[in-house]
Amino acid sequence: MSSKNYYDVTTWRSGNAAEDIGEVINSIIADIKKRQTTPDHGEGGKPGAVIYIPPGDYRLRTQIRIDVSYVRIEGSGHGFTSSSIRFNVPEGDWAGLHELWPGGSRVLVDLPLAGESGPEDGAAFYVARSGDPRISSVEFVNFCIDGLHFRSDGSDRHPENTYVNAKTGIYVADANDSFRITGMGFVYLEHALTIYNADALSIHDNFIAECGNCIELRGWGQASKVTDNLIGAGFRGYSIYAENHGGLLITANNVFPRGASSVYLNGVTRSSVTNNRLHSFYPGMVELAVNSSENLIATNHFLRDHEPWTPFLGTDNGLDDVYGLLRVSGSHNSIIGNHFSEVIDSQDIRPTGAAPVIMRLVSGTGNYLANNHVVGIDVSTRPSDSCYSAQVDALLTTEASQELAVTAVFVQSESTGNTVLDSGTDDQVTMSREMNAFRATPEVGSAVMATLGNL
Amino acid sequence: MSSKNYYDVTTWRSGNAAEDIGEVINSIIADIKKRQTTPDHGEGGKPGAVIYIPPGDYRLRTQIRIDVSYVRIEGSGHGFTSSSIRFNVPEGDWAGLHELWPGGSRVLVDLPLAGESGPEDGAAFYVARSGDPRISSVEFVNFCIDGLHFRSDGSDRHPENTYVNAKTGIYVADANDSFRITGMGFVYLEHALTIYNADALSIHDNFIAECGNCIELRGWGQASKVTDNLIGAGFRGYSIYAENHGGLLITANNVFPRGASSVYLNGVTRSSVTNNRLHSFYPGMVELAVNSSENLIATNHFLRDHEPWTPFLGTDNGLDDVYGLLRVSGSHNSIIGNHFSEVIDSQDIRPTGAAPVIMRLVSGTGNYLANNHVVGIDVSTRPSDSCYSAQVDALLTTEASQELAVTAVFVQSESTGNTVLDSGTDDQVTMSREMNAFRATPEVGSAVMATLGNL
Amino acid sequence: MSSKNYYDVTTWRSGNAAEDIGEVINSIIADIKKRQTTPDHGEGGKPGAVIYIPPGDYRLRTQIRIDVSYVRIEGSGHGFTSSSIRFNVPEGDWAGLHELWPGGSRVLVDLPLAGESGPEDGAAFYVARSGDPRISSVEFVNFCIDGLHFRSDGSDRHPENTYVNAKTGIYVADANDSFRITGMGFVYLEHALTIYNADALSIHDNFIAECGNCIELRGWGQASKVTDNLIGAGFRGYSIYAENHGGLLITANNVFPRGASSVYLNGVTRSSVTNNRLHSFYPGMVELAVNSSENLIATNHFLRDHEPWTPFLGTDNGLDDVYGLLRVSGSHNSIIGNHFSEVIDSQDIRPTGAAPVIMRLVSGTGNYLANNHVVGIDVSTRPSDSCYSAQVDALLTTEASQELAVTAVFVQSESTGNTVLDSGTDDQVTMSREMNAFRATPEVGSAVMATLGNL
Repeated sequence: MSSKNYYDVTTWRSGNAAEDIGEVINSIIADIKKRQTTPDHGEGGKPGAVIYIPPGDYRLRTQIRIDVSYVRIEGSGHGFTSSSIRFNVPEGDWAGLHELWPGGSRVLVDLPLAGESGPEDGAAFYVARSGDPRISSVEFVNFCIDGLHFRSDGSDRHPENTYVNAKTGIYVADANDSFRITGMGFVYLEHALTIYNADALSIHDNFIAECGNCIELRGWGQASKVTDNLIGAGFRGYSIYAENHGGLLITANNVFPRGASSVYLNGVTRSSVTNNRLHSFYPGMVELAVNSSENLIATNHFLRDHEPWTPFLGTDNGLDDVYGLLRVSGSHNSIIGNHFSEVIDSQDIRPTGAAPVIMRLVSGTGNYLANNHVVGIDVSTRPSDSCYSAQVDALLTTEASQELAVTAVFVQSESTGNTVLDSGTDDQVTMSREMNAFRATPEVGSAVMATLGNL
Repeated sequence: MSSKNYYDVTTWRSGNAAEDIGEVINSIIADIKKRQTTPDHGEGGKPGAVIYIPPGDYRLRTQIRIDVSYVRIEGSGHGFTSSSIRFNVPEGDWAGLHELWPGGSRVLVDLPLAGESGPEDGAAFYVARSGDPRISSVEFVNFCIDGLHFRSDGSDRHPENTYVNAKTGIYVADANDSFRITGMGFVYLEHALTIYNADALSIHDNFIAECGNCIELRGWGQASKVTDNLIGAGFRGYSIYAENHGGLLITANNVFPRGASSVYLNGVTRSSVTNNRLHSFYPGMVELAVNSSENLIATNHFLRDHEPWTPFLGTDNGLDDVYGLLRVSGSHNSIIGNHFSEVIDSQDIRPTGAAPVIMRLVSGTGNYLANNHVVGIDVSTRPSDSCYSAQVDALLTTEASQELAVTAVFVQSESTGNTVLDSGTDDQVTMSREMNAFRATPEVGSAVMATLGNL
Repeated sequence: MSSKNYYDVTTWRSGNAAEDIGEVINSIIADIKKRQTTPDHGEGGKPGAVIYIPPGDYRLRTQIRIDVSYVRIEGSGHGFTSSSIRFNVPEGDWAGLHELWPGGSRVLVDLPLAGESGPEDGAAFYVARSGDPRISSVEFVNFCIDGLHFRSDGSDRHPENTYVNAKTGIYVADANDSFRITGMGFVYLEHALTIYNADALSIHDNFIAECGNCIELRGWGQASKVTDNLIGAGFRGYSIYAENHGGLLITANNVFPRGASSVYLNGVTRSSVTNNRLHSFYPGMVELAVNSSENLIATNHFLRDHEPWTPFLGTDNGLDDVYGLLRVSGSHNSIIGNHFSEVIDSQDIRPTGAAPVIMRLVSGTGNYLANNHVVGIDVSTRPSDSCYSAQVDALLTTEASQELAVTAVFVQSESTGNTVLDSGTDDQVTMSREMNAFRATPEVGSAVMATLGNL
């Protein structure tokens, strides 16, 4: 490791990484910039560097500011554990716990003025550079960013259960190219990842959970991918949010509760949400908003059931059950081959007596829905004090339950010219048959009746 | 690398990693525990460590026992090679081989009493910890676990071809959270990975082949992912097995032969098997057993053909050809958009003269099958002494073959209320049209006939 | 890092990695072979090694030749930036740019005789070994291979925009097993990756762009995967090309322009192209050629629009708009659940006045097309001098546009016995209804008419 472009935060000459890793990494970045000054020295000259964070606890008291391309920050452990479960263990039992905190190569975000002025102020890593070219190939790999605590939101809610602390893990302010976020752990941050104006971004194989919001792609962007992550936001926030992106590929993610939204696309076009496993405690799981058009939503597994864990009982995202698990404002989208399980207690449906809506088209034209399978099951909820036992029990319960009547597809009159095929039986689909094309999923016995009709 | 939490097995003060890496890693873990004793030292205190295994041969004579969170065992090479091909080269030719053994950062499992008492005794890595919280974020990355040899199973079969040796690569006994298995190689183990009670587990981008069984998720679990792996079990075992899991995402895997089972789900609910490439020499490729319900099986490629390699000719998994390539005991599953190629010699069909069954519904209700495409091709098998040449030849042969009559969908009378759409022509589907909903795939010329019928 | 099997190119005793990393790595490989001579020394003996390339600029003046298994070449940064954008910035503005070149762990390919005799001569990494076993588990991880410059192709085109320089990143000449290419960056190479005769190859999570051709799998092969990559070839070349492969899994890739071809399969069978996001400026995006059969093409997002960036205006791949975005010569393929957006200026259609063809079946039999959704939009092109602004603008433009008439499915008379379901309305599908099976996508109002017809 004699290379000058390899840094270890524990051996850097300036600062003490355990006390303030922010000061250390900023000093390293200054060193990189001091050494790599020539934009063209023999067809090179600014290769960047890797900054290594060995496993350990590193308090961050100074925001890290990255304004140089090709910097890779790398640890040796994503270090996630459930702080949410721990903070809901009675304090008297903490002495009996093996460990209380996340671990691995762990950055403890402890900024003095977190979020007083804006979300970027509370960011552990703040990436910004104006001018040309866009900052490129910054990489975050295999370490943990821990926001430590949530704080009171002014309600009666336990402060550690609010998902509020004005802290952000990584905040990218300026247009960027070919960034890579891989193998990371994020926990107890109000915002895990906020990235503006991304091109060819890869967010791959991370663990982003117990954060207020997980992935926010803001501004605009193109040709990026969010793939193969384990993700779960808090009840106020987004698991995956994107705005004004084209050509975004969201696939192979396992998005678990309790985010207010699993995937929210705002003015997103020509993108894919395919092949994800999505689980939520609320309606509005996937929303295509503000003329999100020509997107493909295919072969996803949607599960909506009830919050089973005592500390969050009664929490919701404010949406009622006719809002739609999948809600579309936009045109020419393809909704193909998805499975929907709505597994709720019919007594809890809002508004009372309504049939929950699974797919809802709000506005636009030319959407194509085909081969979506909707399962409605009426269950009695059984809350539990154990977070994962409660969830596993609820997940595995499929027997001794009754069918729940649902509206598989609801097309508002503002949305016309859509095609709905084999995505609900005739009485499960509410829409104008004149203004849209429709073929009902055949009902049991219908083949026999059709044959009789032909005689 | 001055951090105390970075260990290199070749420089540790105790033991000799080449002679017994087990003793060395156990000593390192003892050191971690000795140094990290305080569960809460300044909002941290137990970050764990990384244990590095450089490329090399490391014999394991002592089982490694992991009972501490945030330990990452990392190598620099998955080191797979086909031991199966090598052991079937005549011994007189071995002197001419470039190498005889796998490589990379390679652990040679040589436990003295492997499997005498139970599968956990033969485990190279044994992870167990009771109490709270569950052990979290243990990571296994980029190294090779090699079981070295199989042994006689009492039959006439060559001992190295039995897939039996009572050795396990990694065995996790207790409830766990956010584990990560990435970039690993597993070879010649009776069980590669056996993990009980997993939550948010990631098994990603590994090479797990020539093992008796590859991935076994036992006990119960939720919200895990098995993604982007190359996998192939032995003729007795499972490539991917899961029981009592909910929200499991199995996607983007390339599962090659010769496992008795490609994917076996036992009491698994609300999970996804999507977008995999599956290849097997036997029926029963994917089975949803014991009331596995509300799962999505979509856009997978199923190929079933014959074993072409001489050493395994005549081997099978004991199932006949009407068992189903995909077999479902459960309710409300979605089977959408899969491709099935059944490419076999009609002379070898069991029972003689039967039409092989592709999708079989055994019990349950409310399953939804749509847009599955079944191709049946009758071929003459051509075995070969070269493993990969034989397989490639067989894979690429599509010409000069005849159509094979198949039963695309067979629904037993115990399974009712299902919907079967465009997944087989009328004569390819055997089921009660009264008790299920059905629309046949149109046959060539049928559009013309329908038009005529309307006149 | 005391292990003899861990090498750092910057500290190796022979050569100077900055001046010629080729000489250094060849010297290291010679050392590995000198030390690891015994094919069976205590059930091991040839574990290979890892060769580390820290971030930095490393000129390659000598071709690296790899003929030993289990070698892992690893860097700490894929280092991509857009050289294409930079070379199209007026030279007078270069002084104001933050950096001019790619970075990370960067190999500058500067071979004296690049490509004079054949493509392998211009390869930075040349992997070849005959005899048995096949060379196994060579790994390329997390570094950058930069071809530096393109050169004049004899036309008036700016030399840096030709995608021609006779340089190849990695060239594998002989049969190989279990290779792994992960986390790499490739830029400004005529051929990024050319691999012959691959078995169980993994090309995962790479950034391969601004190369003449990106991935070429040649010879024959099986059971490989190309997953989760960001890919974009030049206007002459292939983004993903495979020939004579079986069981290939191409999934979760984001393939952006401007490749002449996004995915080209030549004699490929029983393989999957699923769940990719594909974007091209030309027809012929995905082609199944030369009897490619029994493949699954599912849940992909196809976008074809116009080149918006000034330097490449007017460039095309020579194909006209009736060629097909997806073109199939082969049998028994499944084309299911894909989204197609054809977003072009009707004034630019070739031949003039034609309806662009989306899916075209050229020859073969038994192909199954179902639930494909085709969107045609007529737009006015708006070129721009800014590469990514132009692309993002074009991607996000969906409003104020008119419908474009397209032929969703065109089946030539040479292709018969196919099944086409719900993939186009009656007037969007051109084929023999006698020789194929057909069900039209219902048109708006058709449900009403059907109901009336039944009365």
